[in-house]
Order: sequence, then C-alpha cells, then structure tokens
Amino acid sequence: MSDFGRSGVVRRTIPRADAAAIERLGRYGVATVHEAQGRTGLMKPWMRPAWPGAAVCGTAVTVLAQPGDNWMLHVAAEVLKPGDIVVIAVTAENDDGMFGDLLATSYRARGGVGLVSDAGVRDARTLAEMKFPVWSRAINARGTVKATVGSVNVPIVCGGMLVHPGDAILGDDDGVVVVPREKVAEVADAADAREKKEEANRKRLAAGELGLDIYGMRDALAKAGLKYLD
Amino acid sequence: MSDFGRSGVVRRTIPRADAAAIERLGRYGVATVHEAQGRTGLMKPWMRPAWPGAAVCGTAVTVLAQPGDNWMLHVAAEVLKPGDIVVIAVTAENDDGMFGDLLATSYRARGGVGLVSDAGVRDARTLAEMKFPVWSRAINARGTVKATVGSVNVPIVCGGMLVHPGDAILGDDDGVVVVPREKVAEVADAADAREKKEEANRKRLAAGELGLDIYGMRDALAKAGLKYLD
Amino acid sequence: MSDFGRSGVVRRTIPRADAAAIERLGRYGVATVHEAQGRTGLMKPWMRPAWPGAAVCGTAVTVLAQPGDNWMLHVAAEVLKPGDIVVIAVTAENDDGMFGDLLATSYRARGGVGLVSDAGVRDARTLAEMKFPVWSRAINARGTVKATVGSVNVPIVCGGMLVHPGDAILGDDDGVVVVPREKVAEVADAADAREKKEEANRKRLAAGELGLDIYGMRDALAKAGLKYLD
Amino acid sequence: MSDFGRSGVVRRTIPRADAAAIERLGRYGVATVHEAQGRTGLMKPWMRPAWPGAAVCGTAVTVLAQPGDNWMLHVAAEVLKPGDIVVIAVTAENDDGMFGDLLATSYRARGGVGLVSDAGVRDARTLAEMKFPVWSRAINARGTVKATVGSVNVPIVCGGMLVHPGDAILGDDDGVVVVPREKVAEVADAADAREKKEEANRKRLAAGELGLDIYGMRDALAKAGLKYLD
Amino acid sequence: MSDFGRSGVVRRTIPRADAAAIERLGRYGVATVHEAQGRTGLMKPWMRPAWPGAAVCGTAVTVLAQPGDNWMLHVAAEVLKPGDIVVIAVTAENDDGMFGDLLATSYRARGGVGLVSDAGVRDARTLAEMKFPVWSRAINARGTVKATVGSVNVPIVCGGMLVHPGDAILGDDDGVVVVPREKVAEVADAADAREKKEEANRKRLAAGELGLDIYGMRDALAKAGLKYLD
Amino acid sequence: MSDFGRSGVVRRTIPRADAAAIERLGRYGVATVHEAQGRTGLMKPWMRPAWPGAAVCGTAVTVLAQPGDNWMLHVAAEVLKPGDIVVIAVTAENDDGMFGDLLATSYRARGGVGLVSDAGVRDARTLAEMKFPVWSRAINARGTVKATVGSVNVPIVCGGMLVHPGDAILGDDDGVVVVPREKVAEVADAADAREKKEEANRKRLAAGELGLDIYGMRDALAKAGLKYLD
Repeated sequence: MSDFGRSGVVRRTIPRADAAAIERLGRYGVATVHEAQGRTGLMKPWMRPAWPGAAVCGTAVTVLAQPGDNWMLHVAAEVLKPGDIVVIAVTAENDDGMFGDLLATSYRARGGVGLVSDAGVRDARTLAEMKFPVWSRAINARGTVKATVGSVNVPIVCGGMLVHPGDAILGDDDGVVVVPREKVAEVADAADAREKKEEANRKRLAAGELGLDIYGMRDALAKAGLKYLD
Repeated sequence: MSDFGRSGVVRRTIPRADAAAIERLGRYGVATVHEAQGRTGLMKPWMRPAWPGAAVCGTAVTVLAQPGDNWMLHVAAEVLKPGDIVVIAVTAENDDGMFGDLLATSYRARGGVGLVSDAGVRDARTLAEMKFPVWSRAINARGTVKATVGSVNVPIVCGGMLVHPGDAILGDDDGVVVVPREKVAEVADAADAREKKEEANRKRLAAGELGLDIYGMRDALAKAGLKYLD
Repeated sequence: MSDFGRSGVVRRTIPRADAAAIERLGRYGVATVHEAQGRTGLMKPWMRPAWPGAAVCGTAVTVLAQPGDNWMLHVAAEVLKPGDIVVIAVTAENDDGMFGDLLATSYRARGGVGLVSDAGVRDARTLAEMKFPVWSRAINARGTVKATVGSVNVPIVCGGMLVHPGDAILGDDDGVVVVPREKVAEVADAADAREKKEEANRKRLAAGELGLDIYGMRDALAKAGLKYLD
Repeated sequence: MSDFGRSGVVRRTIPRADAAAIERLGRYGVATVHEAQGRTGLMKPWMRPAWPGAAVCGTAVTVLAQPGDNWMLHVAAEVLKPGDIVVIAVTAENDDGMFGDLLATSYRARGGVGLVSDAGVRDARTLAEMKFPVWSRAINARGTVKATVGSVNVPIVCGGMLVHPGDAILGDDDGVVVVPREKVAEVADAADAREKKEEANRKRLAAGELGLDIYGMRDALAKAGLKYLD
Repeated sequence: MSDFGRSGVVRRTIPRADAAAIERLGRYGVATVHEAQGRTGLMKPWMRPAWPGAAVCGTAVTVLAQPGDNWMLHVAAEVLKPGDIVVIAVTAENDDGMFGDLLATSYRARGGVGLVSDAGVRDARTLAEMKFPVWSRAINARGTVKATVGSVNVPIVCGGMLVHPGDAILGDDDGVVVVPREKVAEVADAADAREKKEEANRKRLAAGELGLDIYGMRDALAKAGLKYLD
Repeated sequence: MSDFGRSGVVRRTIPRADAAAIERLGRYGVATVHEAQGRTGLMKPWMRPAWPGAAVCGTAVTVLAQPGDNWMLHVAAEVLKPGDIVVIAVTAENDDGMFGDLLATSYRARGGVGLVSDAGVRDARTLAEMKFPVWSRAINARGTVKATVGSVNVPIVCGGMLVHPGDAILGDDDGVVVVPREKVAEVADAADAREKKEEANRKRLAAGELGLDIYGMRDALAKAGLKYLD
C-alpha cells in the first residue's frame, strides 16, 4: 500500500487478474457478483453507465488525476494491455468531462475495453455509437487541461471503493463492482453457484410458488412477531 | 389511519379501487391525471422509471420496510391480486437495491403489474427486458438482508405522498401519481374531459393559433401590467 | 444590460445571430463548440436532454418566469421566429413541469425548434415521439399556474450561464452551450478547425499511435517530474 | 383522513394532545422520544434548527401552503392556542423564506411556541435573538406572495412524516419528532423509563465499564461469528 | 457587457456605488433589501456565512477564477479600495478552499471588508476570530494552485446572480443580495420605507392583532374560496 | 491490505502513530497539515464538525459498520487506548445517528478523544456541552440496531479517504485530514516550516504588502497573458 496517494508515478508492469477467470466473471451481472463476494466491492450508486446496456468485465489500470486535468489519461494509454479497463480517481470532487471519443478511440486501439470515472465524461452520443462501455459520475461537455501530473497504477479510491491495479472490474446497468485480483476465480465460482440456485428458484417463482415457501421464511417471520390480520 | 407506522402487521384483505375505473384511468398520462385531480397526488420528482417507456396503472399493495431489508417484499407477494402494484416505503432514507428480477418474476406470476420503491432496485436490464414497470429513487446493485419485520398494507408515505392500500397508482415517464381509491372513477372522468379539451386545443395550436388567443389571456396580462416594447 | 431582472416586459424585436452561421455551428457537438470558444458558455451539467439523441442549434428567445408559473411561455410563442429556441430562467429554484406537449406543438407551429428550461418539463414520452428537442433540470409531471407576469427577451441566467436574446444555443447529449450572438461565425470557424485537427488525430489514435507522441507530451511530463517504475 | 390534500379549508377547532403530557414529553430529547416510540415519527434529517439550542415541545397546527406563498401562515395565526407549533407542508419542493420575524412576533403574541417548515425561513438572526424555536429545510431571504389559498389544520406530510393537527411536536438540535396526539402520555412514560435506564448506564460507562458487559453483548457477538485477532 | 466571460483581463478602475448610499443600505437586512428591490438580486440559498453573525455591506470587486486556482485572488488585492467586497465566480462547479486567513489579512490591510465565493473557503475558525465576513458555497480545507489566469472586475455570475464590478453587495445570516450600482440610494430609500412600515406592524402584531386584519386579507381569502369549518 | 473489506474481525493490537509526533501535529490546523503533506489525505467536505470549535488530533481506531447498526461501536470501546479517535465507515450510504452521548461517555472513560463518522450522529447538544469532538456526514436522531457484525481495526474508506488503524487523524472547523502513521513526524515538521513561513508573510500582508510582490507573481502573470486595463 505504500504507493497510496503518491503522485507523479507510473507503474508500467502490474500483476493482472487471470484472463480466464475474468472471462468467467463477465458472464454474471453486477448484482450477482456483489452478492457472490459477500456484498462487498460495489461502487456507490452515483456511478452510472453513459449509455443503457453498457456491460463489460476487465482488469483495472488505475489513474489518479487532478480535478479538471486529463493528462494522466494519455499516459495510461501507453501501459494498457488487451482487456484493461481504465479506472479514474480525482483528488477532489469534480465532474468535468475528462474523457471523450478521442481517448476512447485510443484506448480501444491499445486493447482497452472500458472506462470508469469518478468525474465526468463527454461525447456521450459517440461513445454509445462506438459501444465503448463507460461509467461515470456525470456527463459534462466541460473540457480539461493537461497541466499537472498525477499517477498511473497506484491504489485509488473510485466510487467510494478501493481499487488496486490489476483488480477485476465488472460493470453493467446496475453499476460497477470491484473484485480483488487474487479472488476472481473464487468469486466467479460463487457467482456461478448463486446463478444456478437463482435459476431454479426463478422457475418456481414463475410458476407461482412463493418465496415464503421456497426460502422457508414462515417460521422466522412468526418468531419475529409478524401478525396477519384479515 | 390507526395503522399508520405500525410495524409487524400484514393486512391480507383490503378494499381496492374498482377495476373498470382503473382501466379507464390507465388511458391517461400522469401529467393529465395529476391535473385532473386538482394538482394533488404526485410523488416527488426523484421517483423515476427504471426503463424508458414504463407505464402502468394498478392498485396499491403497500409495504413498510426497514432500510436494507427486503423481507416484507416476499410477504407482500402472497397477498397480491391481479392488477396490483407494490408500493414500498422505508423507515429511513436508503437506496439499496431491494427489488430485482426474481421478485419481479414472482410478482408477475401472482398477478402483480408493477412496483414503486422509495429505495433502490437492481437488475435494471432484466426488468427492462421483462417489461416489468418499476419506478424508484435509485438503481443500485447493493443487496439487502431479511432480518427485521415491517408491515404490509398499512398507510405509508412514498415519494413524499401518502398512499393507502387499494389506492390507484399510475406511472409513466413523467413520474407516479396516487389517486385515492374512492375517487378513481371521478378522476378518470375529469382526465377524459381534460384530454378532450386538450385535443381540441392541440389542433388549434398545431395550426398556428396562439394560446394567448385560445385561452383568452391578453386582457389578464395587460391588467397584470405586462408591457410590450418593440 | 439595463433590462436585467426587469419583470413585466416583452421585447418583440430582437437582433438574432446570423442564420447561416447558426446552420454552420449546428454541425458540431457541444463539447467541440465549448472548446472552440475557449471553454466558455457551457451550462451546468444538471441541464440534461429530455430524450437521448436530442440535438439542435438555434437562436435564443429568453423567458424570465416565476417559479410554478408558465404564463410567460404562452407570451413567448407570439414572438417566435423560425429557428428560435426558448430559454427559460425562473426567479427561484424550482422543478415544476412548466412545459409539455401542447406548448411544444404551439412552438413548432410558430417556428420554434427547441427548449431549454432551468426548471422542469413534462410529457417526456410525447416530446420524444414528437422529436422536439428539450433540455431541463428535471422531468416532473407537476403543473403550473398562470398568475404572475415575468418577462420575455430580457437577459437571463439559465443553467448558471448568462443568455441574451438572440444568442446561439446549441444542445446535444453532452449538455447545452451558449454562443454570444456576434461571435457565432467566428466560433463556427474555430469549431471547424478543431474538428479537422481532431479528425486527423482520431485516425492516428485509431491506428494505435499514442497521444503522448501525437501531442508531444513526453518532455513536458518528464519536466513535471513524472517517474516511470517497472 | 378525508381532509388529506384538501385545499381551501380551515379547521378552527381541533383536538389537541393533553397539555400536561406535552409538558412531560418536553423534558426529553428528540433522540430519546424517537426511541421511546419504537423508532417512529422522526422527520427527515434535512429538517434543521434555525439557531443552535432551539428546543421546544408543543401541539401541531398544520398548514398546507402553495410553494412561494405564505398567505395561509397568516390564516393560521388566528386559530393558534397557547402551546401550539405551526407545522408547514408545501405542495411542491420549495425553499423560499416563507416565515420571518414578523410572523414569529405574531405567533408568539397569539400563544405560538415554535414553527417547523418543509420550506425555508428568513430573518434567522432575529429569530435567534427572539429565541423563537424554528426548524426548516433552508434559510433563505427570498420572500413569498399571498395569492393562492391552501389549508389549515388538515393532515399533512412534513419532513417526510405524516402530521395530524393536534399531534405533539418535539424539536431540538437533533431534529424534529412527531408523536400522535393520543399517545403522548404513553410515549412520555416510555421516554422517562428509557432516560432512567440510560442515566444508570451513563454512570457505569463514565466509570469505565464497557457496553459489551453492561448490555451483555459478548455471547451474541461470538454467535454472530465475530473473531478477535491480536 | 462586452467583457462577460473574458479571461486574462484586470480592470483597475471601476465606477463604484456611492459610499453614503452603501452606508445607508447597510442598515437593513438582506431580506428587507431583497423585498425593497422587488424581490430581485438574491443569491441562491447555498451561499452561507462562514460564521454566524457575519454581516456587511460594500462594493463588489469581481473575480473570475479557474476551479482549484486562487491566483486571481492575489491580483484582486491590488485593486481593492476601502469598502470593497471581493466576489468570486469559478468557471466550473468547485468547492475547493480558495480563500483563507492570509488573504483575509491582506484584503483587510488593503481596505477590503468582506468576501463572497461561489467556491469554498478555509481557516473558518480564524476568519470567525478575525470577524472577517465571508459567504461561500462550502467550507473546505482543500487548497488551490496558482497556475491559470482568470479576470478581475469583469461581470460574473456568482450564486446564480449577475454581479457587475462596483455593484453593492449586502450579506447577513439570511444570505447575500446584489444591488446594481446605480440603484443603491433608491433601494436604500425603499428599504427604509419598508422597515418603517414593518416596525409599525411589528408593534401591532406583538400586541396580538392579526395580519388578517392589519393587511385586510379577509375579503380576498373569502373570494379565493377559503372555507372555515368548526 | 489483506484485511480490506473483511467483516467480523477485531484486531486488538495495532501499531499507532508516535504520541509525541501526534502532539506536535495537533498544533496545526487541518488546512496547514493538508498542504504540508502535499495536498493529500483530506476527507470530503461533507465531513463537518458537530459543534463549532471542535478540534483534536489522535490515532485512528477504525470501525467498519453495517448501515443502521452501531454494534461495532461498542466493540471498539474495548480496544481504545488513550489518545484514540474512532473512525467509522459504513458499507452503504447512510446517515442514521449511530453515535451519541452515551458512547461518547464510554469512549472518554476509555481514553478516546474524538470520533469521525461517515454516517450520522445524535445528541448534538450534549456532545457540544461535553466538548467531545465529533465530525460526521449528518446530525440525525434516528437510532440504530445491534444486529450484524462488522469489523474493528481493518483499513476503511471514510469521507472518501483510506484510513488505516493507527493513522493520525486531525480535525477542526475546516474538516478532517488523515496522516499515514509512519509520516506523522515528517508532516509535523513540514507543517511547522509552512506555519513559520506563513507567519512571516502574514505580518507583511497585514502591513499592506501585496502577495503579488511577496510571492513574486508579477512576471508569471504577465507571461500567462494577464492584461491590465484602466
């Protein structure tokens, strides 16, 4: 953790979550994965997709940027590997549009598959047309300067959640969840088990059975003092 | 009103707004119905559809839940009748995702036609694909526990508006409006009259006539002191 | 500026930005134009399109309204010229739905091509179906009265930005930008130059070249103290 | 509940919570009373005192006002009885300063002992000097008109909480809590019991004993799986 | 208005509101002056005093700053005249603490009597001890750089309100109001008249007379349809 | 960092920042220390003191709590050492009043000197009378349950900032800053140097010298293109 908050540092080489595990994790939704890892890792609900249907799973390349300054986003492009998602923290609350279609073009050309920003993004329409998955705190045309250095691939806090370089990032319409690098396979297993159980329950619920019976809740409700009146 | 705020109570049998009146009310938009009942009954503007185009009219089954606890949503499933909309209040401000595709499947199987939540919902994409109409304060993957009892079918405050079990609930892209159970037919009549008048005015406006003339505003404006400069 | 804040005044005749320049400006996005005029003129990010894809460029007819009162919006209809966009300020923070499909029908019939409101709008679905471009602070079914006069075609502050009657207004998914009447041609030129440069860079970025090299940033980063670790 | 949302009605005579019970309730803090009535009745945390140290207990005279219109606050003055607190709801979100030192002077002269407003108040400094207890959503110099009637002494929703005329209202630095008229004595008893228990615990805690031991939590924590590491 | 939004300009010499008129205006509260100039000129309610009791009246020296950059605040110090209040706008929403006790010391030494900032301030405790009147959107220790030029003494939008250099600025616990330079004497007269009328009414209200009678509202209320029930 | 996000763990023994260094750090304000450590470590501006003048410096004992559940705050009491400040994160956004005068009494008896909470606190008046320093996101009477375990002395994110057990926590009217445990002496040195420099500058500024001259800004401003007009 000694890099936390360090400014002016670019780490070129980072360990990344295993690609096969990332692929498996990407089969599940954010809600399922958040549950599968014990309700941890979810970014705050202000983190919203820039276009409906955006969904991706990849490995985090982190950026610590100054508010209103997107210089480090260009620096990050050089260290991208295929399957990476750029995750941006800013050192003060800010919603300037620090990412748009030009950077999306660059990231995609270098293997990048998505972006998560604790600030704003712009060119929302073009991002949707490009189908480049983006989550952010705001959509905002306001541009940024390139004046002060930040860092790339240091631990950051984004969406209220700690993100280490190489962690798995999964986003969809429900938000963004972070899975620690070394736990991706384990969480994918848990998500798979959960999904199978849910699938079975979904059929029973669709047939009109009640959760009260499927999950055996009636006794616990009675013990908790729930009273039925007619 | 003696149930207000009571916890741990499920009322199985409630009077519901008349089904034929509900069907008629459902032909109009939220803005029209809100006007038709004298600009009352509208929930606060934070109550937004989970997917664009969501629109439904039904009868309220109310839930008073603890924040972060969706136990009572399973209890509510058992008392649903065809045409019901589950309306959720929480006892403290909270935007956890207490409703998702499994409960939507269950509610639909039991006759439920929609959901309005003063907290969050999740599985937004699946809800859209299911075309299950949902309005909420937030979309949030964060899950909930099943630990503390609340109540079902007691009066609640949802979206800043008092809702009694059996009231009519109408939602569309403009928000959600509540119509008291015994007034549904009367409000549908008023909405119909308003719509007819608006339709006539729409044609005149589309032809280039001015609202100033159609509504006869010129005198009132002059009396109010409005001055024209060239 | 002597009209600023005057109430009860309608200016029928205003100078408008040149139509040919408006047409040229409308070929560019809000982000590009905001940059092209030196990062000025952008409304606050709370100003959002009522439907995705809304995009328009036109000349401002300004309205200063009382909160919860849309009387002046009818007055404005009469002074519209083809290509005008109605821009609304309210004298206190308010998100009532003061504009809907009837006024959109009227404005369109009189040549109006869009609306920007620092309050709320309603009939969101119908506005989308009509493809009438609208930006606002909120979508809200809540209606308004016609009781107090305001002004038409006085300078206003909307979305945190000063707008004079006749200024160019450009909106898209990224927000709304104001261009002073007399600068439209000059800003369109600058936007064109910027777009051409961006287009060239987009191709190089798409081919995998780095912004670091295209924009020649490496020296400046080194001077600013950026350090690379392996 | 048939008055709910009715506009244009003033109820002169209302049943009020018992004065002796009100006096007893006023000995406790908002946090204690909220607990004593089973964690119900607390207004949302946006309801804040206009000056630090404001504290009062009284009976509710309710006002349903139009946003930006304080006409009904003058109407309410006439129906005040000694010990009353005026509680204001507005029909749309609004923070205009609809109450100031003149109305405070009038209310005090007529027996009023406080005010709770879901909108704004002004003359904050003078209210503090007068020591007139006020809670509101905002402090805002912006004034209001006297143009549209509302109602006095109908049930309202204020601070997200249902308030009936005659209910007990208790406010202090922690916020505002509503106690239903017929439960005031019972809740005062419960608050008294709670306070006595807390007083005993406070002494033990001040002496260095742990809540873990006083409340016997160690077993439950172990059962819940809490693990201690050195 | 041709300077609006210009960056990189310092106007040394500005016309200022008349000092005697400023002194007279300063005898009244913000709420009174806002009323006296027809309910215009009030900044948004997010503009709050940094310490309770802050109150001042002076002439505006305006600053247009970049977010997170307080360079121009030093530039402003040089053009201050006795009785000036520095009023800051930032080109994007930002709450960094761009003003603290050192600048307050400098401003006071140069004749400055207060500060109004659409961003944040810091050293709140010291400002209170110095009794230097400050209003801002936020209190925030976060510091700023000195890297990009803005402007001094151009028209700005601060707190949602247009401010010209030399306008009168009046602040107290209720917020901040702007009075155009050339209207200060006239508004002070109107405030004086209003205050006198209010003083007379205050006495009558304190004696228990009702506003309903003093202001003769009973007929208008009856005409508006208000009904009394017993 | 392996404990991050772990639930159900209490670490009894933690390394703490050096007591003498903490004492030295406590001589400076939050703004100074935030600058002295290179503008890092500052919590978000929503973290406000519960009473004006609250100021303290100590070592962090961290708590990760469930929203609406203050069980772990009792667990934390047992591991407090003299000079500790309890720092609370919650696993979802929440502003329930999870800390009040009883816990403050207990913490003080065990050596605790303050509290920082990313949720709400209550008993605000009593906390002020006790002069127990508290910072929080909200003041809210709403109480909490004791139902689900969290953790004590694991790394947490509070106020948007990463906090490790044993880190230095400094709070005053300007907010709260975190200093990593091993850097406290170094940061105190830097704060001291900064303070000395500021003290010298304060005298020159108070004598009427300009920052423009003291900091030698004139050349840089001219190079940046600043123009003076008369």
